[in-house]
Amino acid sequence: MENNIQEEKIPSAISPLSGNQGASGTIHVFAPATVANVVCGFDVLGFAVNEPGDEVIMRVTNKPGITISKITGDDGRLPLDPAKNTVSVSVQHYLQSVGRTDIGLDIELHKKMPIGSGLGSSSASTVAGLFAIKTLLGDDADPVNLLPFAMKGEEMACGHGHADNVAPALFGGFVLVRSYEPLDIIRLPHPKDLYCAIIFPDVDVPTREARQIIRKNIQMKDAVTQWGNIAGLVSGLFMNDIDLIGRSMKDILVEPVRSMLIPDFYKMREMAMELGAVSFGISGSGPSVFAFARDEGTAHRITQKLQQHLTAINIGSNTYVSTINDKGPKVIG
Amino acid sequence: MENNIQEEKIPSAISPLSGNQGASGTIHVFAPATVANVVCGFDVLGFAVNEPGDEVIMRVTNKPGITISKITGDDGRLPLDPAKNTVSVSVQHYLQSVGRTDIGLDIELHKKMPIGSGLGSSSASTVAGLFAIKTLLGDDADPVNLLPFAMKGEEMACGHGHADNVAPALFGGFVLVRSYEPLDIIRLPHPKDLYCAIIFPDVDVPTREARQIIRKNIQMKDAVTQWGNIAGLVSGLFMNDIDLIGRSMKDILVEPVRSMLIPDFYKMREMAMELGAVSFGISGSGPSVFAFARDEGTAHRITQKLQQHLTAINIGSNTYVSTINDKGPKVIG
Repeated sequence: MENNIQEEKIPSAISPLSGNQGASGTIHVFAPATVANVVCGFDVLGFAVNEPGDEVIMRVTNKPGITISKITGDDGRLPLDPAKNTVSVSVQHYLQSVGRTDIGLDIELHKKMPIGSGLGSSSASTVAGLFAIKTLLGDDADPVNLLPFAMKGEEMACGHGHADNVAPALFGGFVLVRSYEPLDIIRLPHPKDLYCAIIFPDVDVPTREARQIIRKNIQMKDAVTQWGNIAGLVSGLFMNDIDLIGRSMKDILVEPVRSMLIPDFYKMREMAMELGAVSFGISGSGPSVFAFARDEGTAHRITQKLQQHLTAINIGSNTYVSTINDKGPKVIG
Repeated sequence: MENNIQEEKIPSAISPLSGNQGASGTIHVFAPATVANVVCGFDVLGFAVNEPGDEVIMRVTNKPGITISKITGDDGRLPLDPAKNTVSVSVQHYLQSVGRTDIGLDIELHKKMPIGSGLGSSSASTVAGLFAIKTLLGDDADPVNLLPFAMKGEEMACGHGHADNVAPALFGGFVLVRSYEPLDIIRLPHPKDLYCAIIFPDVDVPTREARQIIRKNIQMKDAVTQWGNIAGLVSGLFMNDIDLIGRSMKDILVEPVRSMLIPDFYKMREMAMELGAVSFGISGSGPSVFAFARDEGTAHRITQKLQQHLTAINIGSNTYVSTINDKGPKVIG
């Protein structure tokens, strides 16, 4: 296939997926950060936010194969080797699947959020890359078809092919991963006026280790409490009932363990709730934490207060406030 | 209080809840059977059906206190002693709570479903009794206020004050018991064209024992599978998506144990699914089983086939087909 490269250029970025046509041009894509688990929904729930997010600039080249020419915002932590970077690996899997390994691509990855933050950093990059190549090739198939490739990236990034970050990054909004075998993704509604305040305390909590500390055996009665809460949260999302969402967002199984890796987790919760948060919890496997709030002002007061507190105990932090992202990835240039 | 009985009669059954007025007349109430657990929703989900259900005839007497003059359909298994019968005990708790122990009541209880069937038999009776006295007294408070009294009845009947039968019996429809402390009941929508086929194999599975065989410790990964499914089922109910409801109704934690107490459970499932059932599972703690079907004909074919099978292995059975009950208890005379 690789010697079958087509030199012709097509004016539009939209070209047929199959056949002997090539793809041309450059595309600049944003994909959102995501909050997985969502307190009571360990391993099955996630949602996307409008800020932060990662950006990929993808350019068609005339030499088959993928190169990564630039990565910014990663402090030199991510590999430029396309065989080792989750973005290029995912895109390569996709190209193999659609029979287009004849294409040459160069990728720039601009990380706009910290790595290892619990905000689905690798998912955002991977989804941005996949959305870029899908758009360049004019592939109008359902985005759900990109999921397996994005999950390949997750497997590489954190040792486990989870979908609770990549699915919301790809679709936007709230997503339920009901089942993995077969993969069953349900898109859930959410209140439009729900604000998400995110605080990333700059401490190191690797996803792999954060998984390992979770208990393997639990009590049935605790599981019942947890699934009552996840059923309540899902109901609250459908009913547009922010009170119900708030009182359902309790995690008695994972948070008690993972919170130990996060500085002053319970103190931060107390501060957030006193300021009027609807709920507060760990984003993904941490160390980022998030709060839901009913308005932008409250969300900002929460991030400010928590950042001040972290500064006082000598921990740097990044903060973000946004509504829930409803669109997933988007072309920005 | 008890010597303060009022002899005056009020023409309408609706009378003020407080004050020195009495209540009068006779009321005949139906309350529905219920399917608790609903496969993946162990201890938190339940729904009501239109058939079967129990009936209570309640008559105001001129002697303070409660009597039970008649019970039918129980094969002599239920106590006529008002201090030992769940209906009278619940009604007595209610009367104490509203300060109306001055009233005299006689109760007839007509069981229209087998006892110990896993169909919320005691809940139906209790809710019928509570709805009867509430209506007689003209108490127009939210029916949710009756729940604590109904749960007292459940505690007496099965050793555990659960709400997953009494709540749907009281409200009709699908009900989520998100939490017990504090009690948080969420009413869920459901597809209008969902038919429920119920088969009660006449074998003995006491609720108390059916609870005891359930594992106390489970694996986290199995709990995650289960709460993915309950989140899927709740989503399917809101989305009116019968396919999603069907594929979410899987129970890997409780059913594998409880099904051992039900003759040919997996054979019956296979038969029901082959006939086009949407899902199949244990009702409450069994031995009743139920299937969802998309139309009445399919539901009837399922009950007929399973009844034939049970007959062939010398087990008697009762069968019922109905849509989901949306109203809860109702006055029928």
